[in-house]
Amino acid sequence: MNDQAKKEILLDQIFSPRGVAVVGASSSQFFTFATMVLLSLKEAGFPNIYPVNPKYTEVHGLPCYPNLQSIPGEVDHVVVSIPAESALTLLDECAVKGVKSVHFFTAGFSESGYMEGAALEKAMLDKAKAGGFRIIGPNCIGLIVPKSRLGISLGTPMDAGPIAFLSQSGGHAQNLPSYTALRGLRFSKIVSYGNALDVDECELLKYFSQDPETEIIAAYIEGVKDGRRFFEALDEAASKKPVIIYKGGRTEAGKRAAHGHTASLTSSVAVFEGLIKQKKTIKVDDIEELIDVLVALRFVNPLPEGTGVGLIGAGGGPSVAASDEMEMAGLNVPRLSQAVQEQLKQSLPLAGSIFVNPIDTPNLTSPEAISETMRVLSKVPDIHMLFYHLGFHPISGWGHSRFSQPSFIESLIKTLKEVRQITSKPVVLALRPPMDLAGTKEFLAVQEALVEAEFPVFHSLRRGAQAMARAIAWNCVFR
Amino acid sequence: MNDQAKKEILLDQIFSPRGVAVVGASSSQFFTFATMVLLSLKEAGFPNIYPVNPKYTEVHGLPCYPNLQSIPGEVDHVVVSIPAESALTLLDECAVKGVKSVHFFTAGFSESGYMEGAALEKAMLDKAKAGGFRIIGPNCIGLIVPKSRLGISLGTPMDAGPIAFLSQSGGHAQNLPSYTALRGLRFSKIVSYGNALDVDECELLKYFSQDPETEIIAAYIEGVKDGRRFFEALDEAASKKPVIIYKGGRTEAGKRAAHGHTASLTSSVAVFEGLIKQKKTIKVDDIEELIDVLVALRFVNPLPEGTGVGLIGAGGGPSVAASDEMEMAGLNVPRLSQAVQEQLKQSLPLAGSIFVNPIDTPNLTSPEAISETMRVLSKVPDIHMLFYHLGFHPISGWGHSRFSQPSFIESLIKTLKEVRQITSKPVVLALRPPMDLAGTKEFLAVQEALVEAEFPVFHSLRRGAQAMARAIAWNCVFR
Repeated sequence: MNDQAKKEILLDQIFSPRGVAVVGASSSQFFTFATMVLLSLKEAGFPNIYPVNPKYTEVHGLPCYPNLQSIPGEVDHVVVSIPAESALTLLDECAVKGVKSVHFFTAGFSESGYMEGAALEKAMLDKAKAGGFRIIGPNCIGLIVPKSRLGISLGTPMDAGPIAFLSQSGGHAQNLPSYTALRGLRFSKIVSYGNALDVDECELLKYFSQDPETEIIAAYIEGVKDGRRFFEALDEAASKKPVIIYKGGRTEAGKRAAHGHTASLTSSVAVFEGLIKQKKTIKVDDIEELIDVLVALRFVNPLPEGTGVGLIGAGGGPSVAASDEMEMAGLNVPRLSQAVQEQLKQSLPLAGSIFVNPIDTPNLTSPEAISETMRVLSKVPDIHMLFYHLGFHPISGWGHSRFSQPSFIESLIKTLKEVRQITSKPVVLALRPPMDLAGTKEFLAVQEALVEAEFPVFHSLRRGAQAMARAIAWNCVFR
Repeated sequence: MNDQAKKEILLDQIFSPRGVAVVGASSSQFFTFATMVLLSLKEAGFPNIYPVNPKYTEVHGLPCYPNLQSIPGEVDHVVVSIPAESALTLLDECAVKGVKSVHFFTAGFSESGYMEGAALEKAMLDKAKAGGFRIIGPNCIGLIVPKSRLGISLGTPMDAGPIAFLSQSGGHAQNLPSYTALRGLRFSKIVSYGNALDVDECELLKYFSQDPETEIIAAYIEGVKDGRRFFEALDEAASKKPVIIYKGGRTEAGKRAAHGHTASLTSSVAVFEGLIKQKKTIKVDDIEELIDVLVALRFVNPLPEGTGVGLIGAGGGPSVAASDEMEMAGLNVPRLSQAVQEQLKQSLPLAGSIFVNPIDTPNLTSPEAISETMRVLSKVPDIHMLFYHLGFHPISGWGHSRFSQPSFIESLIKTLKEVRQITSKPVVLALRPPMDLAGTKEFLAVQEALVEAEFPVFHSLRRGAQAMARAIAWNCVFR
C-alpha cells in the first residue's frame, strides 16, 4: 500500500518533468526517433530540452551535451534511443543526475546478443530501483502530455482534454491524437508502455482512475503478466470512470504478432473478454471502434436512457441502409404512429418522402424541414435520440453544391443547436466522408463546425450505431 | 420466348439512344433533376439533347421545345420529371413520336391523389405496350451508360468498363461511379429501376448475363415481385458471370423504409439469403462491401487458390490488428518455418522486426527490403497472396514525409510491379486513408499510382480481408 502510494506520486512527477534529455538526437537529415522527439518538444514549446550526443555541440539550434552530467539544468525525464549495449551505463548516469524517469524507445534488447534478454532487463530494473527512477518501455514511444508540452512527433495536437490512453503499441499511441483531433477528442495523458518492464497497464489504470484531469480511460492491451493484479486494477478504474479496452491479439496469428511485438503472452481471448465484461468495461475490436466509442462518451451527455432512434436523412437507399444498420447494431427504430406521421406531413413534401421512421426527405436543403422533423420526433416517447445522416457526393452536383455554400452549413448548425435547446434527447450525426479531394474540403468544413459545436460526429451509419449501442449498454449496466 | 427475345432487343436499344428528350428541364438557378440530367448530357458530349418545356425557347444554350412532337430529330429516350397527373398525356406524345424508352424520375404516383396508384400504373403500362416502348421507373434516376455518353449528374466519370450495376435505389446508382472511380472501377451500364413497373431486376440480370460489355454484375435489390422469375434469372446470370447482391431491408425498420421507398414488399431475409447462396452469388451487406468485392474481382486475376496470406507492414500494433482481421475474416496467416524466417533476417533489421508472419519491419522506407520480403514469402507453398498494409500518418512526420516524396512512391510501385512479374500470387494492398486534408493529397497520389498499375487497393485491413475472403469463397464454389 505504501509502495503503491509512492509509485503514484512518482507517476505524477513523470507527467510534468522540469527538463527532458534526448539521448541520441542528431542533426542528421534522416529523422531518427530521438530527433523527432527533440523537434516535437521544440514545436510544442517545452522549455528545457537537452540533446545528448558526444558527436555534436549543437543539434537543431539547441546546445548539445556529451552526457547527462554535463547538462547544467534539472533533468527529470530522459528519452533514450541508443543500442542496448549502452543501456546499463546510461542508467548509471541517470542515477547520478537524479532523474525521475527514463523512456527507452530502443527495441531488440532480448535479441541484441549483448546479454541474455532477461538478465539485461533485470539489471535495468535493479538500477532503476536503486536510483529511484522509473522506466517506461522498452520498445515504445513513451509519453504524450499536452498540458506539459510533452510530445513525440511533429504536428501532434497539443490541447489538453479529458481522455487518457494507455497503449502497448507505440503506433496506436502516436496516431490516436492525430486521428481524433478533427473529431474533437483531446487527451490528458497518453502513455505507450511497450514491454512493460516497470510501468505497466495495472499501475496506469489505477493512476488514471484517480487522475483529476482524466474523465475517460482508453487502453490498447496485447497481454498482461499478472491476471490478478490486472483484475484488481481494472475493477478500481471501471468503478470510477468509463474504461474502453481494445485487446490486440485475438486470433492465433494476432497472438503470434503480439508476442513478436511486445513479448506479450496474450491471454486466452475468452478469459480476457469474460474478465472485462465482468468489470463493466467497454470492449472494442479495433482502433476506429475505440475512437467512435470515445466520441459517444465524450459528446453524448447524458447518454440516452433507451435505444430508440429517430432516423433522418435523404435518399431511399441510404434510409434503408441506415435502418438496417441501426437495428443490426442493437438500436431500435420504432414505427411512428399515424398521428405523428400526419404531423410530419405538414412540413415535408409528400412525393419522395418516407414518414414511418426512418424519415427520408428530399428537403435536405431546408433547415426548417429538418428542424420541424426533429421537433416532432423529439416528442415521441419511444425515441431516445435523433440520428441525422448525410452523405457527401463529391463529384455529382447535389450534396456537394449544397455543402459548398457557407450559408447552408451555418443554417444547418444553427438548426441543430436549436433542436438541442428544446430537447434533452441527443442529436447524433453520421457524416459519410467522400473519397475525393474535391469533396474533402466541404466535408471537413461541415465536420469542423459540428465538432466545434460539440456534436458527436461519426463517419458511417454502422460505426455510429455500434458506438452508441456500446455506450448505452455500458451506461445501463454501470448505473 | 419470342416475347423475351423482343424485350432483350429493346433493352439493347435503350442503352444507345440516338436522341434524348429531357422533359421539365429549365433555366432556373435551382438544380432540378431534369436540369442536372441536361447539363450532364452536355458535359458528357451526348450529341442530340432536346430540352422540353413550354415556358422556354432556350435552356442552358440548347433550343427548348414546347412538346415532343416539335422536336426535329429522332428521340429514342425520354427523361421525365413532371407531376404524375401529366404522365398519361406525355405517354401519348411518346407513342406518336415513336420513342423506345421513357424514364420517370417522378415519385409520388400512388400518393398523388390524381388517380388510384395501381390504376394509374396499369394505364401507363398499357400505353407503353401499345406504343411499343419501355418504361424505366418510376421513382428512380434511370440510366448511366458511359459508352453512349448517357449520364445523370455532373462530374460522373464517363470511361466505360466491365461492371454492370442494377439498383433499386437511385442514390446508390448515382453515387457508385463517383465512389469507385479512384479505386479504378468503370461501368458498362448502370440502371436505377426504382418501382420496377416495367423493366425489372429479372430482365436486367438476364440481359447483363449476355451483354458482351459486362463481365461482373452487381445489384442492389430491396424486394422482388416474382420469386420464381427472380430465381430463374439469377440462376442464368450466376452461371455465366460473378453476381454480387446487396439486399436492402434486412431488419424490420429497413423493410419499412424499403416499402416507403420503392413500395417493395421485401422478402423474408432468410429465404432471400438462402436463395442467393444456392445460386452461387456473393452476398454483401452494404455499399462499401459491394465496392470492395468489385475491386477484388476486377483486379485479382486469377483469384488465389487458397486462403493463405503473407502479411507485410510496419508497426507492431498495426501488425497485430492486421493478423486479427485476416483470421477473423476467414483468411489464414500461416506461421513461417524457421528456415524462411532465417532468409528474411538476411534483409531485415533484427531490432523492431517480427519475422513469424505477420512480417513487421521498420524498413518501410526501403523498397529493397519490401521486395526481398515479398520474394521470399511468394515461394512459401502455404501462402497464396501477399497482403501489404500501409497507413498514412497525416500529421506526424513519419509515414507522411515518406509518401510526400515522389521518388519513394515511384520506387514502391516499381517494386510491387517487379514482384508481380516473378510470382502468380497476387499482391493486395490495404492503404489506410488519413482523415485530414494534409495527408489526403499524398494518400490519393499513392492510390492513383497503384490503381493505374491495376493493383487491388482497399481502405482498411478488415475491408480488404473480408472482400478477398468472399471472392475466394465464391471462386471455390463456382468452379
